[in-house]
Amino acid sequence: MVKLQLELELSYTVFEPGADFFFYIHAACTQYQTVSFESLDISQKHARWEVQQSQNVGQRCLRLSAEPGALHVRYLATVAITHFCAEPAQIAEVPVSQLPLEVLHYIYPSRYCQSDRLANFAMGLFAHLPQGYARAQAICEWVRQHVTFRSNSSNASTAAVDTLVERVGVCRDFAHLMIALCRASNLPARFVTGTDYGADPALGPSDFHAYVEVYLGGRWYLFDPSGTAIPMGMMRLATGRDAADVAFATIFGGVMSEQPRIRVLAESDEAHGVSLPSHTHLALSTA
Amino acid sequence: MVKLQLELELSYTVFEPGADFFFYIHAACTQYQTVSFESLDISQKHARWEVQQSQNVGQRCLRLSAEPGALHVRYLATVAITHFCAEPAQIAEVPVSQLPLEVLHYIYPSRYCQSDRLANFAMGLFAHLPQGYARAQAICEWVRQHVTFRSNSSNASTAAVDTLVERVGVCRDFAHLMIALCRASNLPARFVTGTDYGADPALGPSDFHAYVEVYLGGRWYLFDPSGTAIPMGMMRLATGRDAADVAFATIFGGVMSEQPRIRVLAESDEAHGVSLPSHTHLALSTA
Amino acid sequence: MVKLQLELELSYTVFEPGADFFFYIHAACTQYQTVSFESLDISQKHARWEVQQSQNVGQRCLRLSAEPGALHVRYLATVAITHFCAEPAQIAEVPVSQLPLEVLHYIYPSRYCQSDRLANFAMGLFAHLPQGYARAQAICEWVRQHVTFRSNSSNASTAAVDTLVERVGVCRDFAHLMIALCRASNLPARFVTGTDYGADPALGPSDFHAYVEVYLGGRWYLFDPSGTAIPMGMMRLATGRDAADVAFATIFGGVMSEQPRIRVLAESDEAHGVSLPSHTHLALSTA
Amino acid sequence: MVKLQLELELSYTVFEPGADFFFYIHAACTQYQTVSFESLDISQKHARWEVQQSQNVGQRCLRLSAEPGALHVRYLATVAITHFCAEPAQIAEVPVSQLPLEVLHYIYPSRYCQSDRLANFAMGLFAHLPQGYARAQAICEWVRQHVTFRSNSSNASTAAVDTLVERVGVCRDFAHLMIALCRASNLPARFVTGTDYGADPALGPSDFHAYVEVYLGGRWYLFDPSGTAIPMGMMRLATGRDAADVAFATIFGGVMSEQPRIRVLAESDEAHGVSLPSHTHLALSTA
Repeated sequence: MVKLQLELELSYTVFEPGADFFFYIHAACTQYQTVSFESLDISQKHARWEVQQSQNVGQRCLRLSAEPGALHVRYLATVAITHFCAEPAQIAEVPVSQLPLEVLHYIYPSRYCQSDRLANFAMGLFAHLPQGYARAQAICEWVRQHVTFRSNSSNASTAAVDTLVERVGVCRDFAHLMIALCRASNLPARFVTGTDYGADPALGPSDFHAYVEVYLGGRWYLFDPSGTAIPMGMMRLATGRDAADVAFATIFGGVMSEQPRIRVLAESDEAHGVSLPSHTHLALSTA
Repeated sequence: MVKLQLELELSYTVFEPGADFFFYIHAACTQYQTVSFESLDISQKHARWEVQQSQNVGQRCLRLSAEPGALHVRYLATVAITHFCAEPAQIAEVPVSQLPLEVLHYIYPSRYCQSDRLANFAMGLFAHLPQGYARAQAICEWVRQHVTFRSNSSNASTAAVDTLVERVGVCRDFAHLMIALCRASNLPARFVTGTDYGADPALGPSDFHAYVEVYLGGRWYLFDPSGTAIPMGMMRLATGRDAADVAFATIFGGVMSEQPRIRVLAESDEAHGVSLPSHTHLALSTA
Repeated sequence: MVKLQLELELSYTVFEPGADFFFYIHAACTQYQTVSFESLDISQKHARWEVQQSQNVGQRCLRLSAEPGALHVRYLATVAITHFCAEPAQIAEVPVSQLPLEVLHYIYPSRYCQSDRLANFAMGLFAHLPQGYARAQAICEWVRQHVTFRSNSSNASTAAVDTLVERVGVCRDFAHLMIALCRASNLPARFVTGTDYGADPALGPSDFHAYVEVYLGGRWYLFDPSGTAIPMGMMRLATGRDAADVAFATIFGGVMSEQPRIRVLAESDEAHGVSLPSHTHLALSTA
Repeated sequence: MVKLQLELELSYTVFEPGADFFFYIHAACTQYQTVSFESLDISQKHARWEVQQSQNVGQRCLRLSAEPGALHVRYLATVAITHFCAEPAQIAEVPVSQLPLEVLHYIYPSRYCQSDRLANFAMGLFAHLPQGYARAQAICEWVRQHVTFRSNSSNASTAAVDTLVERVGVCRDFAHLMIALCRASNLPARFVTGTDYGADPALGPSDFHAYVEVYLGGRWYLFDPSGTAIPMGMMRLATGRDAADVAFATIFGGVMSEQPRIRVLAESDEAHGVSLPSHTHLALSTA
């Protein structure tokens, strides 16, 4: 088990009455990820807001209608994550004909993951590989080796085919390209937003993170194609087809945003089975 | 109430053992659309198949693993459709802050509806219009007037921004562009596949049809941006974000397809309240 | 006649030996634009460089191989521009069949002006208009009214179809879109880089400018689709199909650039027929 | 020397008076390619037409204004081609700083060759290779091995980045991708249309061909990235930045086209030094 402390601050200037925000900043509540403490502090006393629990992998949506002026949102949480671990060599693919109907959606193309255009490409590179977890891992490695991480090198409309062509991006772009290549290889794959414990400080201040889940052997396994974090320390906030579904903030109305401030600390308490997140050769699943 | 008879034949040549098909060819079963008779005939005696009911607007997925050789799928159905009708002038928009969480997904961009890129465009054309059903209708009209219907003018990767640029397409392209413009205007919109009763024979033989639902006044209202069918005669097969979700056939494996053959007839039985589909100024909803 | 004084400073930090620069920063020398004084100052004493005159509308290419370290390039010029002026109503289009072969190139699509995709669009909006200068002007007006000027809203790969979709850009994007729409309307059009006398200081410091020439009545007439400068005060630096041909600086090698500094002053000397640039209803040509 | 006999027939139905055609169907006249016989037969007695010689690599433009009705254009030519041959290992690259100004254009991106987007991609694959002819050849081989030839798999707006993503195309697409990758590697490259002596009949009837020239060692060397013809038997028709410049037919007006019919025969006359085109390891140049 790992135990993480999240501290998150968002700051905005709201220019119009009734600007609407949809946030996915709460730690998801799932069988594998439990929240033992959390607090939410919203600076505007008269803002209307509510937190809605979704059935989608335990995510929670904070809906907020703000008033003009400064808006600060501060969220703290203590979260315990257990991981289902498996030997990569023992994880098989699920044939398309046996995919559950609700998983099937994640094999289709989406806004930022145009897998339909990558069928020949994926076929040429990955079809001949042995089936199983290793194939997804090969896709993950390919993306990591062929795309360069560079801050501010992409924008809100950058999609997987752009990254495939331009070979540069941030974690979200790595995730989109890996997802698109998995789907093009008939592996259901989805996008998870979370936090990036263990990221290299040289890449900039701590930030939201985007990573990938691939459906293999009847579960969703974690992959971190940008390789910028320690997978065992990734905390799930929201899960979707791609970044279009799970932006940490979707805003309607005239608003100026500041850079979010995020801090993630890991606790260690070996006596109670709490370890620091560490790299492992095992396949990890939290869904 | 309208009553439709659907007759649908699909023919394939399968080259590999274990080719997998996912069909959305069954009439959806909903509160507004009831199936009083249906039959499904699959030519391959040893093919494995099943029909799975989804919670998604009553659609049913036919999953089939075929053997090499000819494959014919024949589906017949008798379907009654009642319509919730409303005066367009009385249908208001739902403010973003009050959209149900499950509807919110339909305001996000998707593979073929890149609404994120159309914000300025939609703002310039539609933001000043009176709020309500009329605004969705104005978008529908705009698409119909600015795009030309031409068979085979688009392909499987054609998306809304392409249609906006090239101004030509088929019903699916009209639907994608209308959906993208609605979402860019903060109106949740989704893609429905069905059949096209009343289509102009000059446009070619009867075919699957694609149309649009926009969420207004707490319901999903029907729009037919290509204007090629009589909305009251549209039978719902499947519902999704765009064509990526609800292709009538998704095929994995080496298969050659023939042109589908579709026939839709409407019954009339005034004594029992069954009328022929006709054009109406009323807003229609079946979801 | 107008008389302009240009002062231009470029600053770079060069990281590798032998970084190559191609600059189009000299005032073009043409029948209509004469340089009465100029000076070029290059800070690196041992850099190799030369200025090559091209036959292409009098432009001059400064080729420079720099050494590691700071590099400053300073160019001063005094330039007189006479304008061929004509009444817009008297300028006819040249039928495609009578276009000179060397003009024909400017009717084809180019990197940033994908006119081939805009045929239906241009047809719908502009085909019915009266032929002549007024049609080009209508295209210019359409672009100005439908695109919003916003600094840093586009990047080096933004092309005309992107601007048509996103409706925002800088002067280069306005120019590309106008050029693409002209070509799609069978009007040869090309891209000119120059300086922007008379630009609104609210849009930022003085900068390079991009504008458009359309071939009408046997000449190339000036258009300024972004409307940010006074056309009579535009000084030609280079001329090409689009920005790919005539970037003010093309750089090979590891180099960091600073924002260019540009100043343009107009002289007035009515006794000698030199006026300040002013807006006019006349059609202007300098080529 | 090789000697080719070309026979070419184009058929159209013209719907409007004054439809304009620009054809590049004449064999180019250059130092290396001489025309010893040719005839041009145009079926419409009253059509106005002329052939204009361009300075651009000897190409000739046939301009024709047709009348409504059937139009047949038949061109016959006997053409001798000598090749400048060199040992690949002895051909060096020309540093960017030494490229002639008129060659520099072919290092810039164009409509179908968006080399600006491929800088990282080309850098990763080809920057470390030894400089010289072999590097261009490595790019040619890469394209041939990673793209699949399939008739009708692309359309008029398919560009290099599409082919890079979708990995399928026809000879024009192979050429565009190779050109884009060369330019992204700082190798000037251009597009040549011609005929495809020696093409595999399994790929369909004889057709126009598209191939590539790369500027190396002070000359333009031939490359055939689709590998569908014998380079020594390629006859040059027109030369440009990409297909936008040198379509064999550009048509303005309402016209229906039939498939062109092309036949190319090679003569052999060893006594006079005329050989059949054959594959060779030597680098070939005809410009």
